[in-house]
Amino acid sequence: MPEFRKDPILGRWVIISTERGKRPTDFNGQSSNKEKVGGFCPFCYGNEDKTPPEVLSYRPDGSKPDEQGWKLRVVPNKFPALQVEGDLGRIGEGIFDKMNGLGAHEVIIETPDHNLDLSDLSEKDIEDVLWAFRDRVVDLKKDDRFKYILIFKNHGESAGASLEHTHSQLIALPIVPKLVIEELNGSKKYFGFKDRCVYCDIIRQEREGKIRVISENSDFISISPFAPRFPFEVWILPKVHNASYEDVQENGEFGSLSYILKDVFTRINKVLNNPPYNMLIHSSPFTEEHNEYYHWHIEIMPKLVRVAGFEWGTGFYINPTTPEEAAKYLREVEI
Amino acid sequence: MPEFRKDPILGRWVIISTERGKRPTDFNGQSSNKEKVGGFCPFCYGNEDKTPPEVLSYRPDGSKPDEQGWKLRVVPNKFPALQVEGDLGRIGEGIFDKMNGLGAHEVIIETPDHNLDLSDLSEKDIEDVLWAFRDRVVDLKKDDRFKYILIFKNHGESAGASLEHTHSQLIALPIVPKLVIEELNGSKKYFGFKDRCVYCDIIRQEREGKIRVISENSDFISISPFAPRFPFEVWILPKVHNASYEDVQENGEFGSLSYILKDVFTRINKVLNNPPYNMLIHSSPFTEEHNEYYHWHIEIMPKLVRVAGFEWGTGFYINPTTPEEAAKYLREVEI
Repeated sequence: MPEFRKDPILGRWVIISTERGKRPTDFNGQSSNKEKVGGFCPFCYGNEDKTPPEVLSYRPDGSKPDEQGWKLRVVPNKFPALQVEGDLGRIGEGIFDKMNGLGAHEVIIETPDHNLDLSDLSEKDIEDVLWAFRDRVVDLKKDDRFKYILIFKNHGESAGASLEHTHSQLIALPIVPKLVIEELNGSKKYFGFKDRCVYCDIIRQEREGKIRVISENSDFISISPFAPRFPFEVWILPKVHNASYEDVQENGEFGSLSYILKDVFTRINKVLNNPPYNMLIHSSPFTEEHNEYYHWHIEIMPKLVRVAGFEWGTGFYINPTTPEEAAKYLREVEI
Repeated sequence: MPEFRKDPILGRWVIISTERGKRPTDFNGQSSNKEKVGGFCPFCYGNEDKTPPEVLSYRPDGSKPDEQGWKLRVVPNKFPALQVEGDLGRIGEGIFDKMNGLGAHEVIIETPDHNLDLSDLSEKDIEDVLWAFRDRVVDLKKDDRFKYILIFKNHGESAGASLEHTHSQLIALPIVPKLVIEELNGSKKYFGFKDRCVYCDIIRQEREGKIRVISENSDFISISPFAPRFPFEVWILPKVHNASYEDVQENGEFGSLSYILKDVFTRINKVLNNPPYNMLIHSSPFTEEHNEYYHWHIEIMPKLVRVAGFEWGTGFYINPTTPEEAAKYLREVEI
């Protein structure tokens, strides 16, 4: 079983895959760049038996589970970072602390079409992906061993995607990760001082200044954040305060979100020539899913630069592009 | 002038290069892998005028500054992330905080030989590099605008090196970075509870258990840490407590360090086939350079895996190789 291990100085947990441990030779050739080349794909029609059985699918024609006909399919990751069975089994090893690598790791196959990317899908199809994210979160929340779920997408090999067929992932965790706790603590501190949500204040200030706004619709706004780690980093935020992604109202909010997502990806692809990217949904942990201080949002980080020694040694990021300039490019590009 | 900008939620500073801002087209082709191919190199003999004037050099034959004859040369970075002139000029922008990108950014050219890497140098030459690091820290500490210096090395393009001629870098900062504060706080907390340095306890436990020890000499030990972020991550620690790198005694400690560094790099290169890597020196900030709780050390992280959405969204790392297995490979390889 994989293990959680805690760094005794930083209190940072890491996940150690103890079972399918990688040997030195497994890392050879990991740095090459692949084109979208096709070949055998476990996410294409006809290969449903090459993945673990599906936990969710959208099948407009009423076809059978784990057979063709689906338009979206969610399956457990065949090589999960964490294992869903068992309990935490917290234990010490001298001064060190560890526990079992308990968690869920699922893959959302966004379309059966091998040649499309998320940004190629219609707004309606993107909306389905957003609903699938929510459906899985709502379901996994029933398991009270889990405290947090991260939904994320790695697009392109240099952004960490190991299969080229477009997909997102979710990992349900038995602990709230350090970075999420830090975001929550920062938001609480601000709320304690101002009695306002820091993200609501950011939206207000950005809508006045306009220099870091990329686009906007009735429910969402996309901006280049004031202090981005990476060049052309984009945040998408709901304009009305809401702490949790899954709390979205059924009044067309996911419709608005799919429009702004498609809009933002179209801009990014045009300006940066279809870059690899990571997309993350930041949402409140289950223990505090309704609150006034935290504001769920999406972060998109095109993979344009390398993280190197300075960043690893300090947690400090060097960003070669101002967010004002990035927003201007993304806002003004013809789409 | 570059800017420091603070993320209003996390309190994380980033450095924004406002002057030589990168445009979208500047990022094209950044993902290709370069071989060591030669061509024009500003770090080779005869090109001393292609770098800013040197701030330190070791010249056994007494040649003139900024001319050939040196065996090691330290110059300001020609494209610095921070600027050395001026003051912080702290200022707000609505709810946001920023200040001038004040700092020093220097390059340590470790040898005039274009074809050698740090690990190819003799122990004596590596020791010179270690002394050069210390000389620059001691000098820059006199500038009381600086609170912290990170010494680091990016080796190989995929680890962030932009020039192939072997070199290290240092960045002097007017603030103590978040990650360093977290390490200090973690160490202080442990010391407050146990009245012992956590790193001293780690060394004690690892020397007893032996399973994560790689090698050891009179003054230093190299280990695979218990909770490493990356596969084959290695830490080198002084066996006697010492908070700051520059506090090293002149009794041959840097001699011992050069031997264990060469030993560790030889093992890494043999086991992992000369991987790209990042090397960092973690040391106490200038405001608390002598203390009982923090223990300076070197971290070496071979660049074998990609950091992707899960890590960016949680601060949680997934490591596919156990440190016990990594240590076994590194310890047992024939060198």
